Parts: sequence; C-alpha cells; structure tokens
Amino acid sequence: MRLVVIGGDAAGMTAASVVRRRRDDADIVVIERGHYTSYSMCGIPYYVAGSIGQPEDLVARSPAEFRDAGMTVHMRTEATAIDPDRRVVTVRDLDRDAERTEPYDALLYATGAHPRVPDLPGLDRHGYVVHTLDEGAQLRDALERRDDVRTVAIVGAGYIGLEVAEALIERGLAVHLIDRGPHVMRTLDADMAARLEKILSDFGVQLHLGESLTAIHADGSHCREVVTDRGCYEANAVVLAMGGTPNVALARAAGCDVGPSGGLVVDNRMRTTVPGVWAAGDVVESRDLVAGRRLNVQLGTHANKQGKVAGIDIAAHPGEGDAAFPGVVGTAVTRLCDWDVARVGLTEREAKDARIAYGAVSFTGTATAGYMPDPGVVHVKMLAQRETGRVLGAQLLGTGNVAKRIDVAAVWCQLGVTVQDAQFFDLSYAPPFGGVWDLLLVAARKLTAELGLSPQL
Amino acid sequence: MRLVVIGGDAAGMTAASVVRRRRDDADIVVIERGHYTSYSMCGIPYYVAGSIGQPEDLVARSPAEFRDAGMTVHMRTEATAIDPDRRVVTVRDLDRDAERTEPYDALLYATGAHPRVPDLPGLDRHGYVVHTLDEGAQLRDALERRDDVRTVAIVGAGYIGLEVAEALIERGLAVHLIDRGPHVMRTLDADMAARLEKILSDFGVQLHLGESLTAIHADGSHCREVVTDRGCYEANAVVLAMGGTPNVALARAAGCDVGPSGGLVVDNRMRTTVPGVWAAGDVVESRDLVAGRRLNVQLGTHANKQGKVAGIDIAAHPGEGDAAFPGVVGTAVTRLCDWDVARVGLTEREAKDARIAYGAVSFTGTATAGYMPDPGVVHVKMLAQRETGRVLGAQLLGTGNVAKRIDVAAVWCQLGVTVQDAQFFDLSYAPPFGGVWDLLLVAARKLTAELGLSPQL
Repeated sequence: MRLVVIGGDAAGMTAASVVRRRRDDADIVVIERGHYTSYSMCGIPYYVAGSIGQPEDLVARSPAEFRDAGMTVHMRTEATAIDPDRRVVTVRDLDRDAERTEPYDALLYATGAHPRVPDLPGLDRHGYVVHTLDEGAQLRDALERRDDVRTVAIVGAGYIGLEVAEALIERGLAVHLIDRGPHVMRTLDADMAARLEKILSDFGVQLHLGESLTAIHADGSHCREVVTDRGCYEANAVVLAMGGTPNVALARAAGCDVGPSGGLVVDNRMRTTVPGVWAAGDVVESRDLVAGRRLNVQLGTHANKQGKVAGIDIAAHPGEGDAAFPGVVGTAVTRLCDWDVARVGLTEREAKDARIAYGAVSFTGTATAGYMPDPGVVHVKMLAQRETGRVLGAQLLGTGNVAKRIDVAAVWCQLGVTVQDAQFFDLSYAPPFGGVWDLLLVAARKLTAELGLSPQL
Repeated sequence: MRLVVIGGDAAGMTAASVVRRRRDDADIVVIERGHYTSYSMCGIPYYVAGSIGQPEDLVARSPAEFRDAGMTVHMRTEATAIDPDRRVVTVRDLDRDAERTEPYDALLYATGAHPRVPDLPGLDRHGYVVHTLDEGAQLRDALERRDDVRTVAIVGAGYIGLEVAEALIERGLAVHLIDRGPHVMRTLDADMAARLEKILSDFGVQLHLGESLTAIHADGSHCREVVTDRGCYEANAVVLAMGGTPNVALARAAGCDVGPSGGLVVDNRMRTTVPGVWAAGDVVESRDLVAGRRLNVQLGTHANKQGKVAGIDIAAHPGEGDAAFPGVVGTAVTRLCDWDVARVGLTEREAKDARIAYGAVSFTGTATAGYMPDPGVVHVKMLAQRETGRVLGAQLLGTGNVAKRIDVAAVWCQLGVTVQDAQFFDLSYAPPFGGVWDLLLVAARKLTAELGLSPQL
C-alpha cells in the first residue's frame, strides 16, 4: 500500500504516523512545500514576540525524525497535479525546479490554507504574513534586522492579528490595527468584542475598525504609511492577518467537491468525494454540531483529530477502522494583554443566521471568590435555544480561570445539554478559582429564568 | 406558611431566600447558633493565612441583610428539639439561656456538621478547629496574640488540614502535619498523593503519615509537644482538621432516617423521611452519580444547590416546584503551594470498593504548550470502566490550568460519557493553556487503548 501525503503539517503527519504504526506494509511518501514539518502554527505569534528562541522550537517532529520512523519525506516539494484515475500525483522539487510523478494507492490531501492578501502595490515588498513558520521567521527576522521599523500596521483583527499586535507592542513597536469589520474578533458578539477593544486600546494598540486598507506609501525600500478609506497612518511594515483560504485548487481540479464554506467536502472518515483521496485539516469543511452548518475551521485541534481519523481509515483493511470525526462546536481561546478570551458555539449573529430562536444573558463576575485578594474579572455571555433551553454558545473574557472553563460549555454544546440541566452540574469550587456557583452555572441559571423554563433555581 | 430554618449558613439561607422570593405569604424564621450567617467556610484557611482582612469579609449576607429582606433571624440561638407531630421546634437563646418554641409548617434542617475531635486531655485548651467562621477567627486571633506559638501540629491531611498547613507556613510558623492514613488526601490515589507529599515537604510541611495523635504535653498554659504512636513533636498549638460529622442528632430524634454515610436520608427534593421536614447541606447524604453510592459530601457547592431545591419545594403550591437535586460526582479542587489539585469521580480504591472493573492511566504533561517559556507540569490520572469505557474519574495535579479542566471530566462523569467518545470533544487550545491535544483528550485516548476499546486514535 502506497500512501502519498500532500502537506507535512499537523493533519498530514498525524495521518502518516497513524498509518506507519498500523501498517508495516505501507510505503509512505510525504510532499511538503516548506522547510518545516509538524509545527505549531498557533505558536508563531509567540515566536514573533521573542518569547520562543528558535523556529525549530515550534517543530514537534522534524523531517529527519519522520524519516527515521520509516517514511519518505520530500521537503521543498510542491504537488502540482493529481490524476485520480491513474492515481498519480505530479510534484515539483522547488529547489531543483524538477518535476516528477508519485503514484499512490491512497492520497491524503492536507494542503492547509493560504493567507488572504489584498492586491495592492507595495505589499509584495512591505507586507508580511504569518501563516507558516517560514513566514513567521521572516517577520521576526525583519523586525530584528531592520531598525527603520518602528510602527507596524496589522490588517485583520482576528486571533492571529491580535496576538501579533500584542507581540509587536511587547517588542517596543507601535501598532495600528486595521479591520474592515465594526469590531475585533468576529467570533465574539459585539458587546464582548467592545470590552476586548478597551483592553487592547489600554495596552497601546491603535484600533482602526470599519476601515479597509487601500494603499501603501513607501520611499523606495522604506515604508512610510498605510492608507485606508478613512485615514492615513504611519507604518514601516504591514502584517496581513486576514484569515486563510483553503488550498483546494488541486483537489478541485481532480474532481473533489468543494462545499459552500470553501473547504473540501469530506465524510466523517475524512474521505473526499473522489475515491482514493482523503483530506484533513485546514483544507476541509467540518460539521458544526450546534447549528448543523458546514464550516471551514482552521485550527490545529481539528487538524490533529482529523489526521488521526483519516490515518485510521486509510490504514484499515476492509471491515476495520471505525474512527469517525464527529464535528466541531467552534471552541477557541487565546490570551491577550493578560486577559483570556474564550468562545464556543454560536454568537447572536450566527444564531440569527441559522434561524434559531435564542435567549442570551451577559453578566460580570470574578475570576476567584470575590473576597480573595485581587479577585479579577470575568465577563460572561451565554446563549441557549429559546424553546428547548439547549446551550448554543458561550463567550468568556477574563483575567483568569477562563480558557479551560469554556471547555465545560463546549461539552454542553457538543452533547446538547440544556441550561435547565446545566445549572445542576457538579463543577469544582475553591476560592482561588471562583465563587461557590461557577460562572457557567450562574449563566445557565440566568438563562433558565430568562427563557421562562423550569426549574428556575 | 411558616418556615423555620435551623442553621443560617449556605444551605439554610439559600433555601430561606428562595422561599422569600417565591412566597409573599411566608413567615420565615432562621435559627443560627453562631455569630455569622451565609459565610464561605472554604475561605477560612485564607483568613487564617492573613490574606483576607476581617471575618466579615467572608460573609456573603449578614443577619441584618436577611432581616431587611423580610426574615426573622435569631442569632446565637440553638435548636434543642423537634416535635414533628405538633410541628414545633424548641430553641434556646444561648446568650440569655432562655428556651422557647417555634411552630412551623415547614422545617428546613440545615445544621451542617461538627468537627471530629479526639478525646484527649489538653485539646480543650490547646486544640483549635476551623469548622466555623467563629472558630477560624479564634485560631487567627490566637496566632496573632500569642508569641509563644512558633510550631503548630495539624491533625488531618485533607483539604482543610493542608490549606491551613500552607497558611501557617506563610505566617512564618513551623508545621507538623499528622494523619493516621498512609497518604495525604484520601480523595486522591496513592500515586497522586505521593506527588503532593513531595510538594508539601519541599514547601516546609513536616509530614507524619501513618501516625495517630495520642497525647499533648503542656506546661500550664504553654503547649510543648504532641505525641503520636510513633513520635513526639514540638508543638505550641494543635489544629484539628479531621473532617466533620453530620449534625443529625435532633433530626434523628424526630424520626428522620439516617443513611449509612452518617448523613440524613433525603429524596431528590431534599425531603427527609419525616413529613414537613426538609434537609440540605453538609448534614444530608447525596447520590454519587458515578458509583450509585450514597455519600455525605460536605461542600458549599452542594449546599447551595440543595438549598435552592429545598426552597423551591417548600415554596411550591401543589403541582409546582419541579426542581430536583440530581446528585454529585465528587468534584473537588484546591490550590496548595502554588499547585492546583483537582479530582472527580472514583479513585482506584473507590472503584474497587464499588466492584467496578476499571482501567487507569497516568502520565505527566505540561500546563502550557511545551515550547512556551516555563511550560509547567500537570500530572494526569484517569479511570474508566473496563467493559464500557465510561469515564469513572480523574485526578490532576499541576502548576496551572487544572481547576476548571477537571470540570470537563466532571461533566463526562455526570453524563456517563465514554473515553471512546471523550477523545473527540472539541476542547479549547492555545499555547498558553496547553498542547494541541488537551490532557484530558490524551488521557481518554490512552485509556481507550489501555482497555482495548475502539476507535483507537
């Protein structure tokens, strides 16, 4: 059995490793365009900040380690075509500029996504993306090498954009953060996002929301300013953090269906619509277990799980291999300016888009018991379905005990737990970690009352 | 409707408040033996440590506030008898030494527990307990007033004993910690407890495990040393933290059934076996949702929920009041010497006692992504039922991101989730909070393999 893996990051190498362990007879060939395998994309902002020493520190397993494990790993090699009838992939060695073909019995398509970049003059020279470790290393290298970079414009106020904003301010740079949306982080509701904007502003981030980048003004090699539809800001470099677009082109050309989310259509075994071709990671779409939508969610957690499931299915002899990826509930966290930001499930806008009647509650509690020294703050929001009380989503913004607390709401979302039941869960309590009623229990209790459901504690 | 509440702490006052809100016609009378209502017992060690200024800081609502809300609150008043046929409680005013009766339509028995104290000469003079806020205040007062107290012996290595040990060391005292068990914290398995013992020893706690207090040697008012069956240790005061015994006496005398756990038998509406008498809080036994046992668990979280449920049922007109307390899964956390200790469900010993065939895995991970500066340590243990894979329990001991993480395992325990399913949950991930595979997902994955269940990711 010959497996060809296109893309040597989380999804691809997880699948390859599973197949390696399960099938002695498998011949495994990995095609990776960049210089690194299996690295933590989420760690890139911390590398840019300087709190991590070397790019290699983010690498979980190197090409050499995979080779030692019995795989063939071709680095700096790009797949250029797939012929699903002949089961052959055409690949190009980027350094030697030489093309050849790789036959396969099974193909795992784990090409990830590429960063969205607007088509503006000057971005080729002064724009940076931080989508791959190579790119993250280029940005930090530029910041350390160039002393004319004092102010940076970041375009895109999602997780990566905000994390990089903090990283650059920690490096002593001034930061303009530009996003065309009315708020930072569109995965939060406006009320929660507004609180986060205050935190970012206080930290020194200069926010320009509701604005789109329109031009870059440079004097030769020196970037001077960026221009938006509403203003003009000093900037010596531009970081583009506008999200990613799934790299579906080759798979689509080979006949794989692409869903409305822009990701490849796969079943719960990670099989594409073309026989012999599996896909996993940032390139696929996943089922949202809350609203039933199909979403393209680009996160390492999903990539790893999907890679495992794909590997099990690829390695399976007939009748074996019963792993199935159930879907996602949109769990995400980050830490920004010493605040933890966490969310799961649907925002109000998403609930409306999904035509789900909902109730929502918001309140502010403390991160520890209120009587402890420095009890901190946690802003809480929770949504539940109006008729049934089913937990639809939660958002937390706080100074502590937030990230892993969202996971409780994630489990409730994934299992369809109602707020009526949720208020009775035996959640932990001790003064350093919260009040006697966990904030999520309080939220469930308030929502039960808000929706007029029973029992109202 | 006349409600008499015996015991003015979490369970009693929560119930009283619910009835107050739901029934304008209710006449509510609260009988409380001590000086405080509705305080955080879990905060007492922090008050002893000195990180909280006044005992009153731990009080959520004072007698005056309850009176303002329209209740009659008798402080320093003790119930001495219940006549369930005439529906009358006999009470004694402790300051005036005067007895009288209080008639009731509904009686809420929320008398809590009293500390276990061995019958040894000298303990009356040199022994302290920290079960009530009055007692906690007495201990701190003694520590601040007496300069001859340099070394303290603590008897009992449960949550309170260990928290007080840390508090006293932070106050500059030497601490001998004595427990007759072979390990600290019997709610943990021996392997996890041993790790905690190392942490406590490194912090300066002198552990004497497998030893029982047998005598106290004093020179008049000055306590000199404590004697155990295996040694003799300098100590100028003794803190007894040997757990609590439910205060069931009056209820038992009135005919209420007491369960094998020592707590009052109640149904899920918190009704005792005697008509017109409800009970809630540390005095009752609860159903363990993992093993089906009945347990007496003395925790504020349960007291509050049970108080709500009792209040709803007491306030209910016929056909109303559908709140039911579902039971507990044994969730508990604390912070000790900058480590978080958390547990839920069954230990190995408890699983054996319940005759549940189980598998267990233990491993050590990091509190953040491994490549972050100072990634910390988290020791993880998880148990699952051998045949079904059902999550039976988990124990975590770590330097961060532990307390609220145990709640995910608590929800799994409470809902009967299997490790096979658990490994697919969409739990949060970002480098400051852990690796891309949450430690609980790793544990579930390892257990699935350990038990030979499918799918094995």
